[in-house]
Amino acid sequence: MTEKKSTKSLEVPKTMKAWVLDGPEELRLTEKPVPQPGPAEALVRIDAVSICGTDVEIITKGLPAWIRGGLPFNKNFTPGHEYMGTIVKLGEGVDEYKIGDRVAVEIHAGCGRCERCRQGMYTSCLNYGLNYEGHNKGHRANGFTTDGGFAQYAVNHINTLAHVPDEMSDEEATLIVTAGTAMYGLDVLGGLVAGESLVVTGPGPIGLMAVAVGKALGAGPVILTGTRDSRLNLGLKLGADHVININKENPVEVVKRITGGRGTNYVMECSGAPNALNEAMDMTQRGGRICLAAFPSEPALVDLAKIVRNNIYLYGIRGEGKSATHRAAALMTQKKFDAKLMHTHTFPLEELPTAFKYFRGRIEDAIKVVVKVS
Amino acid sequence: MTEKKSTKSLEVPKTMKAWVLDGPEELRLTEKPVPQPGPAEALVRIDAVSICGTDVEIITKGLPAWIRGGLPFNKNFTPGHEYMGTIVKLGEGVDEYKIGDRVAVEIHAGCGRCERCRQGMYTSCLNYGLNYEGHNKGHRANGFTTDGGFAQYAVNHINTLAHVPDEMSDEEATLIVTAGTAMYGLDVLGGLVAGESLVVTGPGPIGLMAVAVGKALGAGPVILTGTRDSRLNLGLKLGADHVININKENPVEVVKRITGGRGTNYVMECSGAPNALNEAMDMTQRGGRICLAAFPSEPALVDLAKIVRNNIYLYGIRGEGKSATHRAAALMTQKKFDAKLMHTHTFPLEELPTAFKYFRGRIEDAIKVVVKVS
Amino acid sequence: MTEKKSTKSLEVPKTMKAWVLDGPEELRLTEKPVPQPGPAEALVRIDAVSICGTDVEIITKGLPAWIRGGLPFNKNFTPGHEYMGTIVKLGEGVDEYKIGDRVAVEIHAGCGRCERCRQGMYTSCLNYGLNYEGHNKGHRANGFTTDGGFAQYAVNHINTLAHVPDEMSDEEATLIVTAGTAMYGLDVLGGLVAGESLVVTGPGPIGLMAVAVGKALGAGPVILTGTRDSRLNLGLKLGADHVININKENPVEVVKRITGGRGTNYVMECSGAPNALNEAMDMTQRGGRICLAAFPSEPALVDLAKIVRNNIYLYGIRGEGKSATHRAAALMTQKKFDAKLMHTHTFPLEELPTAFKYFRGRIEDAIKVVVKVS
Amino acid sequence: MTEKKSTKSLEVPKTMKAWVLDGPEELRLTEKPVPQPGPAEALVRIDAVSICGTDVEIITKGLPAWIRGGLPFNKNFTPGHEYMGTIVKLGEGVDEYKIGDRVAVEIHAGCGRCERCRQGMYTSCLNYGLNYEGHNKGHRANGFTTDGGFAQYAVNHINTLAHVPDEMSDEEATLIVTAGTAMYGLDVLGGLVAGESLVVTGPGPIGLMAVAVGKALGAGPVILTGTRDSRLNLGLKLGADHVININKENPVEVVKRITGGRGTNYVMECSGAPNALNEAMDMTQRGGRICLAAFPSEPALVDLAKIVRNNIYLYGIRGEGKSATHRAAALMTQKKFDAKLMHTHTFPLEELPTAFKYFRGRIEDAIKVVVKVS
Repeated sequence: MTEKKSTKSLEVPKTMKAWVLDGPEELRLTEKPVPQPGPAEALVRIDAVSICGTDVEIITKGLPAWIRGGLPFNKNFTPGHEYMGTIVKLGEGVDEYKIGDRVAVEIHAGCGRCERCRQGMYTSCLNYGLNYEGHNKGHRANGFTTDGGFAQYAVNHINTLAHVPDEMSDEEATLIVTAGTAMYGLDVLGGLVAGESLVVTGPGPIGLMAVAVGKALGAGPVILTGTRDSRLNLGLKLGADHVININKENPVEVVKRITGGRGTNYVMECSGAPNALNEAMDMTQRGGRICLAAFPSEPALVDLAKIVRNNIYLYGIRGEGKSATHRAAALMTQKKFDAKLMHTHTFPLEELPTAFKYFRGRIEDAIKVVVKVS
Repeated sequence: MTEKKSTKSLEVPKTMKAWVLDGPEELRLTEKPVPQPGPAEALVRIDAVSICGTDVEIITKGLPAWIRGGLPFNKNFTPGHEYMGTIVKLGEGVDEYKIGDRVAVEIHAGCGRCERCRQGMYTSCLNYGLNYEGHNKGHRANGFTTDGGFAQYAVNHINTLAHVPDEMSDEEATLIVTAGTAMYGLDVLGGLVAGESLVVTGPGPIGLMAVAVGKALGAGPVILTGTRDSRLNLGLKLGADHVININKENPVEVVKRITGGRGTNYVMECSGAPNALNEAMDMTQRGGRICLAAFPSEPALVDLAKIVRNNIYLYGIRGEGKSATHRAAALMTQKKFDAKLMHTHTFPLEELPTAFKYFRGRIEDAIKVVVKVS
Repeated sequence: MTEKKSTKSLEVPKTMKAWVLDGPEELRLTEKPVPQPGPAEALVRIDAVSICGTDVEIITKGLPAWIRGGLPFNKNFTPGHEYMGTIVKLGEGVDEYKIGDRVAVEIHAGCGRCERCRQGMYTSCLNYGLNYEGHNKGHRANGFTTDGGFAQYAVNHINTLAHVPDEMSDEEATLIVTAGTAMYGLDVLGGLVAGESLVVTGPGPIGLMAVAVGKALGAGPVILTGTRDSRLNLGLKLGADHVININKENPVEVVKRITGGRGTNYVMECSGAPNALNEAMDMTQRGGRICLAAFPSEPALVDLAKIVRNNIYLYGIRGEGKSATHRAAALMTQKKFDAKLMHTHTFPLEELPTAFKYFRGRIEDAIKVVVKVS
Repeated sequence: MTEKKSTKSLEVPKTMKAWVLDGPEELRLTEKPVPQPGPAEALVRIDAVSICGTDVEIITKGLPAWIRGGLPFNKNFTPGHEYMGTIVKLGEGVDEYKIGDRVAVEIHAGCGRCERCRQGMYTSCLNYGLNYEGHNKGHRANGFTTDGGFAQYAVNHINTLAHVPDEMSDEEATLIVTAGTAMYGLDVLGGLVAGESLVVTGPGPIGLMAVAVGKALGAGPVILTGTRDSRLNLGLKLGADHVININKENPVEVVKRITGGRGTNYVMECSGAPNALNEAMDMTQRGGRICLAAFPSEPALVDLAKIVRNNIYLYGIRGEGKSATHRAAALMTQKKFDAKLMHTHTFPLEELPTAFKYFRGRIEDAIKVVVKVS
C-alpha cells in the first residue's frame, strides 16, 4: 500500500479515461475532460471501484425510469458508485480534507434545502436528481444522476466522503459503502442492537455486511438465510451465529426454534424474494422490526394483516444515510470485521466488461468484483 | 349528567346481567357473578359501551384464531371493549382512582415482564392472552381475552383506565378509546405533526378520529378519502381541510395537487382496502411515513419496491398503546374536537342484538352505536 | 393589509436605509447598497422587525465574544433578527418561493456539511459564523453574523424562510420566530406533549409563546411562573391553566399541589434566574425533562445530584431548529393562539432608538416592540 | 466453575446467614428466614456479590434520606446490590427461568403501573420505594428498599434477572450490573455511538466499564480522564484510545487536540468532581451530549449559559434502565471486553467488614472487591 501511494501521482491531467453509457448495454471507453471541483467539492482520483447489482440494472436498462423520471438522460453518463480514491484537488472553502487524503465515497449528497435534508434524511432528498442546468438544487447521486466511478477521476461533494486509513487496502475500502448501507439498515431498526436477535435474509453483499456489522455491534444471535452454502459459509466467517439454507430447512421454523419460540427482534431483508416479507413477518416477534433493503422486481402478495396484528414496523431504505458510511469506516478501521472476505476478483479499468461478466455470471463464485483504476 | 350520576348506585350486587358468547353468532344474555378486583385492579360499573367492527368479527367468527391461538376458548366469554363506567370497588393497593370516579377503559394491560412491556410497548406484549390458570402472566385484553363490556360490571387493571371529566357524557366517553387508537397512530408517525400534511384513508370511526386528532395537534392540510359523502362530510365537520370521494376522483392525483406535487408527509390507512397501501405509497413523499391501522382480509398485491426506493417507513398498530387514551381523553376534555358527532344511535343493554343489527347494516347511516348499561 | 400589500413596490432600488453598529451602543442610520441574492438565496424587502433581548445584548456589548470568537468584527454590521417581509428577488435555482411571497425569517442557516447539519441539527452547526471570505462554509445567523433586519432589505438563505399567509399582519408575523423557539423547546422535550403537564418559568416573549404553543398542542395543565402580574395575566389569555407569582407563592409547592404531588412532566425554563434550574428540578417528577431556553448571566450554584437521582434530562436550546418556525407559522395560520396579544408598540424604522428605549425600559409595559420598515 | 456448580446445593434451607444494617456503620451478621418468592419472582441463592460505592453510602449514613423519604426504615435491612447467583425456587407463573439457571441481578423492578413504567422508564418509577404493607405498588430496589445481596438468598422480581452463561465466573458476573449502568448511559447518549468520540471522566468502576462498553460498540476515539495512573492504565487495557491524567495535563485542551479542535460528541461524567460538568461542557462540541452518572456531594457552580449556547443535552441516569444489563450480559458473553480486569479482591461472606475496609481504603489498589457467598 504505502509504496503504491507514494508512486501514484497527485497531479491532475486535462483528460481522463472514462466508461460512458450510450444506451442499454452500450458501455464505451472514452476520453473525457477531467471535471473541476466547485465549492464544497473535491476532485477524487479513483483508485478502485467495485461492482454493485444496481450497476447491472443501470447498464442493462439504461438509467431506470424511477431514477430518471422527468430528468434529461445524459448520453455521456459514467456509472459506478462503489468507489474510493485519493483527493487531488479541493474546491473553494474546503479544508475538511487535504490533497493526498484517501477517501471512500458514498452515493448521495442531498440538496440541503428540502424538508428531508433539513431533517438530516439526505438519502430521501425531495430534489433527487435535480442538479442540472436550470433546475440545479445541488442534489447528487454519484453514478446514478451524476458521473460516477468507472473513470479515472470524479468530482464529489464533501458530504459523500469518508476518510480511509493508511492500513486499509483500496479493495477493502470500496466495501465501506456496502457496509454503510448495512449500518444504515441497523440504524433505522434501532441502532442499539446489542444483545438482540437479528435475522438477515439473503447473503448478497449487503446481507453479508449486515451480518458483519450486526455482529460488530453486539447483536446476538445473528442468523443468516440463503440458498447457496458457499455464501452461507462466508456468513459464518463474517460472524453469523447460525445459517439456514432455505432449500433444506424452513427458515421460519428454525428461527423460532433458535429464539426459544419467540421469533426475532429484527429482520434485515436483503434477498428481494417475492415471499421474503411474508416470511420475515412470520419470524418476527410482536413489536419487532423489519428493514427492507432489497425488493422483488414484481409486486408481491403480502399478508398485511400481520403487520397490523403484530405491531410490526417496516423500514424501506435506499443507500447509506445518516452518515452510516462514516460509522462503517470506523468499524472497519477498528478491524471489527473482515470485509475483504467478500472481495473475490480484481480487474483493471480497461477490462470493465470482463469484470461485469464475472459479476453477472457469478463466475468462480464471484461476490465483490473490484476494478482497479490507477 | 349530574343527576344521573347521583342517582346511580355505587353499591355492588352479587350478580349482574351480562351477554356471553357461546359460539359464532351465539350471543346470550345471562346472569353472572360480579367479578372481584385483585391487586392493581378496579371493579367498574359499566355505564356505556359502543360497538366496534372488531366486536362483529369476534361475534361472527368466535374469537378469531389469531387471538385465540393455542388459548383455551372461554365458553362463557363476554365481549365488548369500547366501554366506560364508574369505579365501584378498588383492589388492594389501588389509590390512583377512588370510588365514584368515572373512567374510560382501554383494551390492553401488558404483562409488565416481557421484553416489549419493559420497553413500554404494552400493546405488543409477548405474553398476549396468557392470563389463565397455570399460564398467568397477567396480560389482559378486555373483551378479547378477558371479559369485556357488554355487561353491568367488569374488572380492569388500572393501567387500562383513564379519567373522564364530569362534563363529558357517557356516550362521548366511549369514544375515548377510538380517539386513543388514532392518537397512537399519530404518535408512531412522529408525534409532533403540527404543520405537516396528513392523509387519512377510510372514514370509519378510527379514520374520522384520526382526522380530528390530527387537526387538534396542528397537522395541515388534513385530507380524508372515502367512498361515502355522508362520512366525508362528517370528516369536514371534524376538521378535514379536504375530502376526496375516491369513486369520483383519483385520490393520488388530488393529494399530489393539494400538496404542490410533493405528496403527503403522513398517511393513516384506516380502510383496509386491498389497494390502499399501494395508493398510500403513491401519495406519500420520499421519506414519508404510513401507519396501517386497518388491513385487507386477504393478502394484497403490494409494490414493495416503492417502500425501498422512497425510503418509506410503515407502522402497523393495533390498539391504543403508549398511553394514547390518556392523551385522547385530555384533548377531548379540552374540547379540541367534538367526538359526539360520530355517535348516531343508543340502545339499552337488553337490546344489544338490535344495536349490532344497526351497526352491521349501517342502518340510518349508523356510525357509533352506543349501548347504555346502567 | 391587502391594500398595503398592493401599494408597496416590489421593485428593488440600488441603495437602502440600514442601521449599522459601529461599536457598543453606537447604532447609526446609513445608506447601504442593496445586497444581491446568490444561489439558494432570496432578497427580502423587510416589512417589519421586532426587538429581542438578544438585540440589546448585541447593541450594548458589541457582538458578544461567544458569537464573535475568532471571527472578524464587521464594522458595518446591521443587527435585527426577528423580521418578516416580502420576496423581491430570487437567487439562481430558487423556485420554492416566488416574488411577492410574504415570509417570516428564522435566524440560522447551517453550513449543510458539518456533522450536525448532516443530522438535521442546523442550529448547532459546527461551522457557526464561518461565512466570510476565505472561510466560507455558508453558515449564516441573520442579525448575528450576517446582516439582519434593521434595514430595508436583507438577503436570506431559503432555509430560513417560512410562508406568511395573507390574513396575517406584518406585526403578528414578526412573532413567528419567537413562537418557533418555543416550539423547538417543546420538540426537544418530546414533541407529543398532549395531556402532559408543562411548567413555563419566566413570562418573557419566549415563555409566553411556550404557554401558547404548549396549550395549542394539548399540554395540560400549563402553568406559568413569574414576578409581574401583568405578564402572568397575559399568560392566562394565551392559555395558561394556572399562573404563579413567585413573589407571593412558592412555585415548587404550588406546582406539586396542582399536579397531585407528583410534580410536572416538563419545564421550559425561560427566566434565566440564578436559582431557576434548582427550582425546575424540584418541581419536575422523576424522569421528567427540562428545557433551558434562557440562562443566568453568571455561573449558578446547581444541585446536580438531583439530575442524577431523578433521571432528569436537560436540554439547552438556542434558536428555533428543526424547522420549528414552519410549525409555529402553521399553528398561527390555523389561529390556534393569538400571538398579537404580545405586540404592544410600533415605531417606524427611523425611530429605532426610541423603539429600543421602550423595549429596554419596559415603558408602558412594553413586550414586543415592532419596527415597521416599509 | 463446572465442578463448583455441580457440588453446590439447589436445596433451600429454612434459614440463612445475612448481614443486616441496624444503623449507620452497624452491620451485623445474623440468621434470617429464607424469603419465599411470590408471583413473577424467583428465589436466588447468592453466589457472589461485589461492593459498590453506594453500599458505602448506605452503610455509613443509614439509608440516605433521598431513598428513604417518608418510607419506614427497616431495622433488619440487608444491603448489597451487585450480586449474582443461581435460581433455586420459582414463584407462581414463572417459566422465564428454571431452577439451576445462573443469573445476574439488576437493582430496579418498577411498579409497572405509573406513567414512567408504562413508558418503559422503570428506573424512574414514580412509586419508588412503595413496596411495603398498605402502600404496596410493587416497586423494588434490591439492596436499597428491599433486602439485597449480602446474604445467602434473596427474592427477586424476574424483571431484574439476566442470564449468566456457563463459561462466565461468578466474580465476573457480579460486574454485569456495573457494565449495565455504563450501557444505559451510552443508550441515553444515543445508542448508536459507533465512529463517534466519547470522553469518560472518572475511572471508577462505572467509568471503566463505560470505556469498555463504548469501545465494544465501536466508539472512537474513546478518551478516559482521571488522576491515578494505575486506573488510567487499566482504562487502556479495557480499550481507551487515550488517557489523560488531569493532574498533569489540561483535559479540555487535550480532548480538543485529539478531536481536531472540534471537541467530543459525548461525555460520560463518572467522577462527581465539582467542576466536572463545566469541563465536560468545554470539551463537548456544539450539539454534543453529556451523561451525568455521578454527582458532586455539594451543589456545584455551573456555567449554565454554555448548555444553552451550545445546544448541549444533559442526561442524568441512575441505575441500569432499559434492559441495559441484558445488553451488557450479551457483550460480556460475546467476550467483547474483559470485565474481570476490574476484579481485584475476593473475601468470603463472613469477612464482609474486611471486604469493605479494602474497598473504602483502596487497599492494594482495590477496585472491585467481590464477596463469595456460597
